[in-house]
Amino acid sequence: MRVVRVSYAEQTFYAALYAEQVCPLEERIEIPRSIPLQEVVLERPVQPTKVVCVGLNYHAHAQELGKEIPEEPLLFLKPPSSVIGSGETIRLPPQSENVHYEGELAMVMGKTCRNAEVEEVPEHIFGYSCANDVTARDLQQKDVQYTRAKGFDTFCPVGPCIETDLNPEQGRELRTLQNGELRQRGSTSDMVFPPDRLVSFISGIMTLNPGDVILTGTPPGVGRINPGDDLSIEIEGIGELQNSVQDQG
Amino acid sequence: MRVVRVSYAEQTFYAALYAEQVCPLEERIEIPRSIPLQEVVLERPVQPTKVVCVGLNYHAHAQELGKEIPEEPLLFLKPPSSVIGSGETIRLPPQSENVHYEGELAMVMGKTCRNAEVEEVPEHIFGYSCANDVTARDLQQKDVQYTRAKGFDTFCPVGPCIETDLNPEQGRELRTLQNGELRQRGSTSDMVFPPDRLVSFISGIMTLNPGDVILTGTPPGVGRINPGDDLSIEIEGIGELQNSVQDQG
Repeated sequence: MRVVRVSYAEQTFYAALYAEQVCPLEERIEIPRSIPLQEVVLERPVQPTKVVCVGLNYHAHAQELGKEIPEEPLLFLKPPSSVIGSGETIRLPPQSENVHYEGELAMVMGKTCRNAEVEEVPEHIFGYSCANDVTARDLQQKDVQYTRAKGFDTFCPVGPCIETDLNPEQGRELRTLQNGELRQRGSTSDMVFPPDRLVSFISGIMTLNPGDVILTGTPPGVGRINPGDDLSIEIEGIGELQNSVQDQG
Repeated sequence: MRVVRVSYAEQTFYAALYAEQVCPLEERIEIPRSIPLQEVVLERPVQPTKVVCVGLNYHAHAQELGKEIPEEPLLFLKPPSSVIGSGETIRLPPQSENVHYEGELAMVMGKTCRNAEVEEVPEHIFGYSCANDVTARDLQQKDVQYTRAKGFDTFCPVGPCIETDLNPEQGRELRTLQNGELRQRGSTSDMVFPPDRLVSFISGIMTLNPGDVILTGTPPGVGRINPGDDLSIEIEGIGELQNSVQDQG
């Protein structure tokens, strides 16, 4: 099932997406049982209490940077205030002169998860989405801590939907396009730490809540974005996360 | 005014603390206008969407570590899942053999704050509290990124109350006691970047929401905690944040 979060008639709700129809997942008297997709506004599909990210989690990306494969997942956080949805605009802040896209598979938690064994993880996952771990590369190098470089408002696009039926360990193609040109291509089966192992590791540190998001790292081919760009992050079986880029106004 | 968050008769609400009475700040038919303090349960006073922290923000602490004063605030995040209140137990995780206390002044946001000038900051602050930036020192050194070392559940005690009338730039004494022995003593006027400047800097990166918490760095004297310890972080004019320490069960 593809789950979207939409606005319609001054209500915001989760809905299942079937072909070009959305079917609300909550029963509310004011909402019809089925609405044409073009009549709703697509909202960011997640409202996490935290976004946990993983660095250097694709073999080929670590190779590209000449870095060693980490022995344990390398974690960092993006603030919930950085999350936007598909169709929204990434705003380039004046503090950076070199902002990069990083196309990633996002996991969305479905249940509270603490100290989960790897085999217990699937029952805690709600589904998967596309994400962009937007990064001010110059500030990342300057600050050492990634918080500022990756924490600006709009630096965490997630969407367009949450696909609940997907096994990323089977290998799904992830592609990033910049103005229609292919920049990143990788398979989710190339991850150093596969999704379920990541969640198990993270849940041994911090309790994951329903709606929390985990970004699973980026394949090779990261690069700079510029005002006026159109970015698209596509994952086979999920969909296409589309964002334009502008300077902060 | 001292603001606490309490539970009473199966309700949780914010209340003003006067002497030994709490006066609910919300009008609800089920809650009396005044309740003796000993009849309520003190809850964690904050429910932030994010906790933004600052490293090396006391001159004497940077000196103690032989580190240079940063030119800009060094930011990192603790996940909301790490927050506990006064009276709750800090749990030592099996992944670390060297967990430290770091007594800090916490700021609590009152209004949405984005790109605020320093002089606009005070109107966005709700108040101040005591906090402990609990840190697994061994993992902090190993990981470089602070997320795991500072992100475990229970690693962010905040409390006991939020004091709305305080000017930390006037200099308030902060003291950390471990089993009754003085470990840290500093003045909030010794900060490298004073509170209002921190908020202005952070709000230029990420939108701060009402209830968000900013930890302003620790004075010298950090040290190891052990199972069975009683910790107390006191800030003049605010109160005493008390937590016991146990191994994760």
